[in-house]
Amino acid sequence: MNKQWRLKKRPVAGPSEDCFELVEADIPELEPGKALIKTWYLGVAPVMLRYMQNETDFESALGLGDLMLGRGVGQVVASDCPTLPVGALVQARIGWQEYALIDDQQVPAPFILRHGDLPASHGLSSLGPSGFTALIGLREIGQLKPNDAILVSGAAGGVGSQAAQVAKALGAKRVVGIAGGPTKCAELINSMGYDAAIDYQSEDVPASIDAHFPEGIDLFFDNVGGVLLDDVLARIRRRARIVICGSISEYLLPPSERHRFANLQNLGRQDARMEAFFIFDYLENHREYSDCLADFIREGLLTPVEHLSEGIETLPGALCDLYRGNNIGVRIVRVASEADTHV
Amino acid sequence: MNKQWRLKKRPVAGPSEDCFELVEADIPELEPGKALIKTWYLGVAPVMLRYMQNETDFESALGLGDLMLGRGVGQVVASDCPTLPVGALVQARIGWQEYALIDDQQVPAPFILRHGDLPASHGLSSLGPSGFTALIGLREIGQLKPNDAILVSGAAGGVGSQAAQVAKALGAKRVVGIAGGPTKCAELINSMGYDAAIDYQSEDVPASIDAHFPEGIDLFFDNVGGVLLDDVLARIRRRARIVICGSISEYLLPPSERHRFANLQNLGRQDARMEAFFIFDYLENHREYSDCLADFIREGLLTPVEHLSEGIETLPGALCDLYRGNNIGVRIVRVASEADTHV
Repeated sequence: MNKQWRLKKRPVAGPSEDCFELVEADIPELEPGKALIKTWYLGVAPVMLRYMQNETDFESALGLGDLMLGRGVGQVVASDCPTLPVGALVQARIGWQEYALIDDQQVPAPFILRHGDLPASHGLSSLGPSGFTALIGLREIGQLKPNDAILVSGAAGGVGSQAAQVAKALGAKRVVGIAGGPTKCAELINSMGYDAAIDYQSEDVPASIDAHFPEGIDLFFDNVGGVLLDDVLARIRRRARIVICGSISEYLLPPSERHRFANLQNLGRQDARMEAFFIFDYLENHREYSDCLADFIREGLLTPVEHLSEGIETLPGALCDLYRGNNIGVRIVRVASEADTHV
Repeated sequence: MNKQWRLKKRPVAGPSEDCFELVEADIPELEPGKALIKTWYLGVAPVMLRYMQNETDFESALGLGDLMLGRGVGQVVASDCPTLPVGALVQARIGWQEYALIDDQQVPAPFILRHGDLPASHGLSSLGPSGFTALIGLREIGQLKPNDAILVSGAAGGVGSQAAQVAKALGAKRVVGIAGGPTKCAELINSMGYDAAIDYQSEDVPASIDAHFPEGIDLFFDNVGGVLLDDVLARIRRRARIVICGSISEYLLPPSERHRFANLQNLGRQDARMEAFFIFDYLENHREYSDCLADFIREGLLTPVEHLSEGIETLPGALCDLYRGNNIGVRIVRVASEADTHV
């Protein structure tokens, strides 16, 4: 059988587990030109709330009763697609299910994980969307320079847990992270490469930013948005770059309740730049990104912080955790493993 | 004698003519390594209000009693500087005066106008800051593409009057401009290369934008900021680019009265970019920009709209006009002319 999570209802005030329904479908039959994937890992990310609300135009429409969208890592167990041969480990739009029939015409395209010396789960962390997001965000969008004064919000999350390590690997001298609570803040420094942490639950954030950045901020890698972004806008230096990776503080709010920005004019005054991005717009270079990140891992510059839970049943809870603020690292669900897969 | 405008008092609610005082100083003596310039033209621009408030860190500090800052075009009438030979026409930080002693160590550096077949006044319009701003803003910052849906605000102003023409010369198919009043809107279409005009004084601007851009905006070249920028933020397409050239609606307001942006989150949702810039950060390529714009003029693709007034006495009024909203084209003051200059 092929267990699948389908969308049962739209979220109201954030994702909740009862938005999803677990069903058992048949394992799909192989079709001409396609490959049958057995899912090993599935990832969750804040953006999935927007899938559930069907408000993105860069993802397939998601109707009620549809298979929940999401990327995963799996192994090809049967194939009539030359570019997806049996045995290959691929990262693809699998959806929340144990088996998927895919082809190489998916947009964004599936890609084969080419670093067999590294754990397959890394295909959803450092060698997958969150690692690519950190690298593209800091290097291509943020145009990171070694002497930049760098601040990262959502620093203990999937992308944030890699941002300081990737920034250092790219030459940055100092990176400060913002996260909520002493546990996360300790992890920032102990396992995620940050030089200092700001605890937004217990500190006066603007005052702490001023203390850490007396001359202002050159590069802000933002996962949070809202008031925090506004506070940073007031503290940017000339030609600063604000990389909009996410705005988790805003996704749950109706438009009328979203923050109204008081300091946006400072972007103009500082000749600064603010830019959001979608990694799948940059994937013509995915091999180079993947090789670069794999090298960082092998050189000990990047240690993915993966928070694994076991079994496809744990997927809705994993996604809800992201919005409960109690997630550390890249949240991944193990659906099956090498031991379960007989090609 | 050397007439000079000096800053007498700081502006309160915008620039006013009584902020300046006209004095007569001596013509400076030539000094080693320097060149004596006789001023032909001086330009005014909205940013000068920020000089008067002494709130920029990219310009020299401007104290009360100091010579007013500003760029101009003049001819070298005496020189001990090999790169600024007698007879050369230069664009430089002359300040509001009839004669200036400069050297080639000024930052940003003076540059020699190399297109002697074109009027010297163009060195303050299309071959000077406003032309460079249009070209750099649309090409380097805006990454203009031929099929972009392009909107320009402040479209009848110094930069705006060139933006549509430069955009077309770069391949754009359609450009819409926003300006105030029927005279300006007629000029947009008749002499500035716009395909359509939105009159913010008589139209419901958001509704007009929706009518002209049913699929949203790809490239917004903004000289206005504030509410208009917020309205456009709500109407951008995926991967839109917002080029912040100026924010004239905000310069006069104290921070507490500036617009608070409701739609900034849409930048993230659309994977879009907003960027401000200062042309003098891009001047390593000034020869290429200058040659490109001169070619546009010669090919009939760009006709500078210059609004000339006669005599150094008209400078304060020219600057105030920019804030009275009754300026069309590039505002330039003729201080002297070829006929008055005997090298």
